[in-house]
Amino acid sequence: MPPDPFDRIDTPALLLDEARMTRNIDRLAARAAALGVQLRPHIKTAKSEAVARRLLGGPMGAATVSTLAEAEALYAAGYRDILYAVGIAPQKLPRVQALRAQGCNLTVLLDSPGQAEALRAFRPPVPALIEIDCDGHRGGLRPDDPLLVVLGRTLHAAGCLAGVMTHAGESYGVSGPQAHAAFAEQERRAVVRAAETLRAAGLPCPVVSVGSTPTAHAAQDMTGVTELRAGVYVFFDLVMAGIGVCQIDDIALSVLTTVIGHQRDKGWILVDAGWMALSRDRGTAAQKADQGYGLVCDAKGRVLPDLIVSSANQEHGIIACRPGSGAEMPDLPVGTHLRILPNHACATAAQHAGYHVLPATGGTPAFWPRFGGW
Amino acid sequence: MPPDPFDRIDTPALLLDEARMTRNIDRLAARAAALGVQLRPHIKTAKSEAVARRLLGGPMGAATVSTLAEAEALYAAGYRDILYAVGIAPQKLPRVQALRAQGCNLTVLLDSPGQAEALRAFRPPVPALIEIDCDGHRGGLRPDDPLLVVLGRTLHAAGCLAGVMTHAGESYGVSGPQAHAAFAEQERRAVVRAAETLRAAGLPCPVVSVGSTPTAHAAQDMTGVTELRAGVYVFFDLVMAGIGVCQIDDIALSVLTTVIGHQRDKGWILVDAGWMALSRDRGTAAQKADQGYGLVCDAKGRVLPDLIVSSANQEHGIIACRPGSGAEMPDLPVGTHLRILPNHACATAAQHAGYHVLPATGGTPAFWPRFGGW
Repeated sequence: MPPDPFDRIDTPALLLDEARMTRNIDRLAARAAALGVQLRPHIKTAKSEAVARRLLGGPMGAATVSTLAEAEALYAAGYRDILYAVGIAPQKLPRVQALRAQGCNLTVLLDSPGQAEALRAFRPPVPALIEIDCDGHRGGLRPDDPLLVVLGRTLHAAGCLAGVMTHAGESYGVSGPQAHAAFAEQERRAVVRAAETLRAAGLPCPVVSVGSTPTAHAAQDMTGVTELRAGVYVFFDLVMAGIGVCQIDDIALSVLTTVIGHQRDKGWILVDAGWMALSRDRGTAAQKADQGYGLVCDAKGRVLPDLIVSSANQEHGIIACRPGSGAEMPDLPVGTHLRILPNHACATAAQHAGYHVLPATGGTPAFWPRFGGW
Repeated sequence: MPPDPFDRIDTPALLLDEARMTRNIDRLAARAAALGVQLRPHIKTAKSEAVARRLLGGPMGAATVSTLAEAEALYAAGYRDILYAVGIAPQKLPRVQALRAQGCNLTVLLDSPGQAEALRAFRPPVPALIEIDCDGHRGGLRPDDPLLVVLGRTLHAAGCLAGVMTHAGESYGVSGPQAHAAFAEQERRAVVRAAETLRAAGLPCPVVSVGSTPTAHAAQDMTGVTELRAGVYVFFDLVMAGIGVCQIDDIALSVLTTVIGHQRDKGWILVDAGWMALSRDRGTAAQKADQGYGLVCDAKGRVLPDLIVSSANQEHGIIACRPGSGAEMPDLPVGTHLRILPNHACATAAQHAGYHVLPATGGTPAFWPRFGGW
C-alpha cells in the first residue's frame, strides 16, 4: 500500500488541490480574454501570496481586496494596482494614504456625500470609484440617482474621480448560465448607464468595473466595461456547484478530517472537523441539494455519494446519509481520513492559517500561509 | 467631548469588557464552591493566556480544551492539569505523549474499542475518560451500554482508566433554570450511573465529570460528581441570553464596527463588520428573539433597541430594525462607531486574532492575543 500522503498532517486541516485551482484560474482568464476585458481577481477568498501569484501574474497584475490588511499584504508581495472594494470608512483613509505614499496605486469605493467629503478633505487625492447598485443587493446608488452626478462633481473637483463599480450579489440566488447571463447584462447596463451619466455631465469615468463569480462566467457582452472582478472561482465550492457555475470536481478546497467515533444506531460518524474547521456557513441550505456543513469524500477526494456533514459543533462534525437518499453508510473505522468539500470557500478557508497544497505532480504537500485580520 | 476610546482601533475589532468577564467568572466560581465541586473551565471559547489566568488561577488550575493546540498553549503558559474533551484520534497520540513526557497531566476522551486499542498499544499509559451520552446530543456510550465495562477493562488493564465524562449539549435547546436543572440532573445521573457500573465491575473511576454552561449554572445537586465543566460563560452571548442563562448586559464580547453607508429607502445601515468579523453563526435563528447576526449597541455598549444585523456578507453587515418591532432607525452617519453583541461567543471570537480589552478601571484598551489552529 502506498504511504498515506496525510500522515504528517494533523487534522483538521485545509487541503488545496493545485491542479483544480489552476484549471479554475485558466478557465476565467480564457473567458476574460475572449470577452476582451481585463480581469481584476478578488483576493478575499484565497488571502495567500502564493495563490495571488498564480491569479495575478507579475507585479503589473490588477487585484481586488476586501480589507486593507489584504492590500498591505499584496503591496508587500510586490503588487501595485489594487482596488479596495468595500465602502470606505473615513477613519481608514490614513492607512490608505500610507500605502499610496509608498507607491501603491490603491483605489477606494464610496456611495455617499459623507465619504466624498472625507475624501475631499484628504490630500494628496485618493482615487475613488462610485458604487452602483444594479440589483438591490447591498450598497451603491441606483444609476438614475441624481446623487451620482453630485458625488461625481465633488470627487472630480478634488481630483479623486476614477470611475464606477457594481457587483451583482443577487446572482448567487439564481441557477444556470442563462439566469447568470441576465444578471451579467444587468450589471453591465447599470454601470455603463452610470458612466454615461457622469460623462454627459462633463465628468471623466475611466474605470467601469463589474463582477461576481456567477456573472463573470456567464457574461456574453462587455461593451463599455473596462474590468471584470471575481473571487471564489479560484477554489469554487458547493454553493457555486449548486447554482451550476462549476462541477463538484472543480472544487479545489477540502478539509481533511479523521473519524473519531460512531453512533451506529443513529447512522452517525463523528469526525474531528466541526464548525471551527468548516465554518458555520450553510450557504447550500436554501439550494436544491442541502449539503449540510459539507459533502464527504474519501481521503483521495472521491465523493462518497449522499454522505454529508449533517451537523457541527465546535470541534465535532456529525456525518450522516442525506435524508431520503437511501444511501448506506460505508464502514469507516476510527482513524479513517476523510475530506469535506466546503459550502463556501471564502468562509471555510478563513478558519485556517493556510493551505496544505496537493501538488499537481504528486509528492509531499507544501504549506501556503494565509493572511488574515483587517 | 471626551476623546473616542476607539480612535486607535481599526474596525472591525473584537472588544472585551473586562468587568463583565470578571463578574461572569466570579458567578460560576461561587456556584461551584456552593455545590462543593471542582470547576474545570473550558478554554475553547477564550483561547487566551490572559483569560486563562483569570479563569484558572495559578498553575494548579484545572482546564478543559477542545484542541491539542490549546493544550500546548496552556502548557507553555504553565498549566499542567488539562482534559482534552474531544474523542481522541489515534493519530494524535504522539502529540499527547509529547506533552505528557514534558510533565503535562493531559487526559484524553474516548468511547470506542478502536480508540481503546490504540491507547493500549501506546506506552507509557495515557489516562482516558470514557465519554457517556446523557442526552443523545453527540458522542458517548449510554450508561447502560455493555460496552462500557468492556472498554473499562481494556483501559484499566493498560493503566489508562481515569473515569467518565458527559456533556448535556441538548441543554442549549431549552430555556430557563428549571429546564436547565433537569438537564443537569440528567447529566449527573448518567455519569454517576456509569461510574457505579464500572466500580461494580471492580474497576476504578476516580473522575466523574459533567458540564455545559446552561447546566452548570442551574445544577442543584452534584452528588457523586467530581468536576464541573463550562466554557462560554466567561463571555456569554445572545444564545445564552436567549435561553435565560444570562442577561444581555452580562455579555462581555462585542465587535466594534464603523458605519460605511446607507440604503435609506430600505431602512438599511451598512457597516464594516460582515460575517468575517461576526462569524456565520445564526444560533438565535431558532430562538424566540432572532437576533440576526447580532444585536446593535452604540459605541458605549448601550443596546439600540430592536436594531440587529439582519444580513451579512464577507465584509459588509446590514443593520435594520427587527421585523415587526416598529422601531425607528436612529441617525447614524458614515463614520459612526457601533458595537455588535455576538450570537455565539466561541464562533465570533474565533474570527479575530485577539481581544481589545476595555479595562474595568477605564483607560486605554490592552490587546490580548488568541491562540488558534489545531
